[in-house]
Amino acid sequence: MESVRKVEISTSGKVIESPCGPIIHGLEDVLIKVTSISDIDGRKGILWYRGYRIDDLAKYSNFEETAYLVLYGKLPTRSELSEFSEKLASNRDLPEEIYSIIRVLAENKVHPMLVLESAVSALAGFDPKAGDLSKEALYDQAIRLTAVLPTIIAAHYRFSRGLGVIKPKKDLSHAANFLYMMFGSTPDEVSTRAIDLYLVLHIDHEVPASTFATHVAISTWTDLYSAIVAGIAALKGPLHGGANEAAMKQYLEIGSPSNARPYVEKLLAEGKRLMGVGHRVYKTYDPRARIYKDLVRELSEKKGNMTYYQIAEEVEKVVLEKLAPKNLYPNIDFWSGIAMYLLGIPYEYYTPIFAMSRVVGWSAHAIEYLNEHRLFRPRACYIGPHDVQYVPIDQRK
Amino acid sequence: MESVRKVEISTSGKVIESPCGPIIHGLEDVLIKVTSISDIDGRKGILWYRGYRIDDLAKYSNFEETAYLVLYGKLPTRSELSEFSEKLASNRDLPEEIYSIIRVLAENKVHPMLVLESAVSALAGFDPKAGDLSKEALYDQAIRLTAVLPTIIAAHYRFSRGLGVIKPKKDLSHAANFLYMMFGSTPDEVSTRAIDLYLVLHIDHEVPASTFATHVAISTWTDLYSAIVAGIAALKGPLHGGANEAAMKQYLEIGSPSNARPYVEKLLAEGKRLMGVGHRVYKTYDPRARIYKDLVRELSEKKGNMTYYQIAEEVEKVVLEKLAPKNLYPNIDFWSGIAMYLLGIPYEYYTPIFAMSRVVGWSAHAIEYLNEHRLFRPRACYIGPHDVQYVPIDQRK
Ligand SMILES: CC(C)(COP(=O)(O)OP(=O)(O)OC[C@H]1O[C@@H](n2cnc3c(N)ncnc32)[C@H](O)[C@@H]1OP(=O)(O)O)[C@@H](O)C(=O)NCCC(=O)NCCS
Ligand SMILES: CC(C)(COP(=O)(O)OP(=O)(O)OC[C@H]1O[C@@H](n2cnc3c(N)ncnc32)[C@H](O)[C@@H]1OP(=O)(O)O)[C@@H](O)C(=O)NCCC(=O)NCCS
Repeated sequence: MESVRKVEISTSGKVIESPCGPIIHGLEDVLIKVTSISDIDGRKGILWYRGYRIDDLAKYSNFEETAYLVLYGKLPTRSELSEFSEKLASNRDLPEEIYSIIRVLAENKVHPMLVLESAVSALAGFDPKAGDLSKEALYDQAIRLTAVLPTIIAAHYRFSRGLGVIKPKKDLSHAANFLYMMFGSTPDEVSTRAIDLYLVLHIDHEVPASTFATHVAISTWTDLYSAIVAGIAALKGPLHGGANEAAMKQYLEIGSPSNARPYVEKLLAEGKRLMGVGHRVYKTYDPRARIYKDLVRELSEKKGNMTYYQIAEEVEKVVLEKLAPKNLYPNIDFWSGIAMYLLGIPYEYYTPIFAMSRVVGWSAHAIEYLNEHRLFRPRACYIGPHDVQYVPIDQRK
Repeated sequence: MESVRKVEISTSGKVIESPCGPIIHGLEDVLIKVTSISDIDGRKGILWYRGYRIDDLAKYSNFEETAYLVLYGKLPTRSELSEFSEKLASNRDLPEEIYSIIRVLAENKVHPMLVLESAVSALAGFDPKAGDLSKEALYDQAIRLTAVLPTIIAAHYRFSRGLGVIKPKKDLSHAANFLYMMFGSTPDEVSTRAIDLYLVLHIDHEVPASTFATHVAISTWTDLYSAIVAGIAALKGPLHGGANEAAMKQYLEIGSPSNARPYVEKLLAEGKRLMGVGHRVYKTYDPRARIYKDLVRELSEKKGNMTYYQIAEEVEKVVLEKLAPKNLYPNIDFWSGIAMYLLGIPYEYYTPIFAMSRVVGWSAHAIEYLNEHRLFRPRACYIGPHDVQYVPIDQRK
């Protein structure tokens, strides 16, 4: 009935030979769909969202506008943008029940990434249209999810410190409102810019593990909230979004610029991984890292604390010397943690802030995938025995 | 530096041609790893766990023993089994904080699959070893997760009906304790057997979408709880675990055996999918469905309600007539909902009970994948424009 077809796939990845055929480890270079959302040139170090270079968006755009672009495929007109921003702003608050869940978890020191997973799944239950996969419903959900993530994160921060929750303010931008909900005052310009630029740079990145997890989940026609939860669950890992937290912890451990070289050399000699370095697709300097590095320097100057910038610069030297020949370069997580640190944000919030931005890309990709949808269902090659005889328990060894 | 290699992959799936090369839609037949956990012969309709035929395990084994087999790769001796069962039983209870979260959500009518996602993520925060990926820690976590899922589900059931929670009983089997926590009395033998067999048949199934989502998440070195949450999020979809709930709803809509044929014919004429039918791997009758069908008949007789069994039998006739020529046959979800229904379990719990069993397979696969680990990071083929010029907002159309 079915015909088996041989398909030729090009990969620069590791291939494992198995009795069932070749296995492309980690699916490196394996295509899962066509997309018009974002593109990466891993060799030249270029990233585009909807055809726009990330450099231009970093310079001229902001989170709201770039989110609109990624979701809808075009830059908004003034009225489209204000409608979109207004929709985001008016969806920021959470049901009391969700605040109560965040409180219980925050008071018990549960990591905010886990609380994001927990709160987002719970929130689906408060959206009567949560399982609706029509375009209209999905866009509404994408906007609601984008609107509430900062509120969940800030509420976690407040509760975990025994502070009262600060409700969102409608008249602040996405970035400014986040800092306001965290710290209770309208943030200064450079701080808002640090968050806003971070958000712009993280909005989408084609199909890393988290976005792929979102695809796999939505391919079963699960609800969008659950698909986003799958994305958050994958982002949490230190090989992915968790690297920004891990990288900052490294700098704190290093402590001073002069300790950078011996620290990194020892770590590499022990065969460990330097966090914030390396990428499956970039075989050169991550363009986001280059852009954000400038902001980190500016922010460090403004805040009068150059220590971590300098530590990172020293680490970078060793990386460019020892790891660049193996195509391992600093990635965005190499620099981003320092900015968060200087803003007074505790490091467990760095990856949640990544999620706060990437939720846009996850949603855009889920919506796109449903257009030409098929269940993700690969195979594994079984290498064990068959038809082993069941032996009654007292005869087993 | 890197060399690109051409790899030949055999697939009977749909292939989309793209400017970047062929895309195997839904990754049909694409291998992601070698495994020694389970195997499926989709043509002959055979399923093995660790080399044992599902038929033998259904006949001779039970949930605890089969879970041990799937996790550890061998059937346990008597003392290994009692140690394992004891460990499961003593890990059944939940922290009060988790009960309180389940209560808030259940009282707000949040679907129990969402509550599973929410509670499992939250629970990670109560396990100080949650991020520990050592073998020992992972096995402990797998056992704890397996132990608590029934408690979360039953607590949801109780709270959502304004009933008090029933704490787990150590001296009952996994299946019996679940029914006890749901309904408050020690269940009769056939009911316990219906749950136990359901659990045995669902423990693992190689790499369907949910297990794949677990792989993608754990490949970032996220914690096992989060990887399981990704699995739950994917299982929820009606094309996957959600099909058991959807299939039962169909039978309820059909209402009587005589209405089965017109209902199915109309549905197919409208180009809709019949739930509980079809499978990516099985191109014949699902062996689990065959086994469980017998139990459903027996249970229907014992409970004195043959209606839904008869409706399903009528539906099956139409399926074998109209869909079998297209390789579409009843799958396990075709039959399983009826047993749950006869046990008095509301249909929103069918997929959670699936998760209660599959958590074993998800865990076993996550542990196995970490042995020969690589980050899952495929690609998408970008087909949009490049280097679009950024136009200031007031000049946009
Ligand atoms: C991102 C990452 C997972 C991509 O990895 P990948 O494409 O799967 O690459 P591999 O794991 O196959 O690594 C290739 C080689 O480079 C080495 N390598 C990769 N990243 C490294 C790092 N950060 N430090 C030291 N060595 C590294 C690996 O050990 C491996 O060496 P080997 O071939 O001798 O075994 C990897 O670079 C990494 O772990 N980086 C650190 C975490 C991080 O910063 N993540 C954020 C990404 S935005
Ligand atoms: C399980 C399932 C997703 C596997 O699907 P898949 O391998 O991706 O197959 P496809 O979606 O490519 O379907 C192949 C063809 O069969 C048809 N088909 C598949 N399942 C069908 C069903 N349950 N009823 C009617 N038609 C079905 C599809 O419409 C498609 O037809 P086309 O080629 O003319 O477009 C699919 O069979 C399904 O949706 N079943 C119903 C849900 C279910 O029971 N899931 C539980 C699985 S254990």
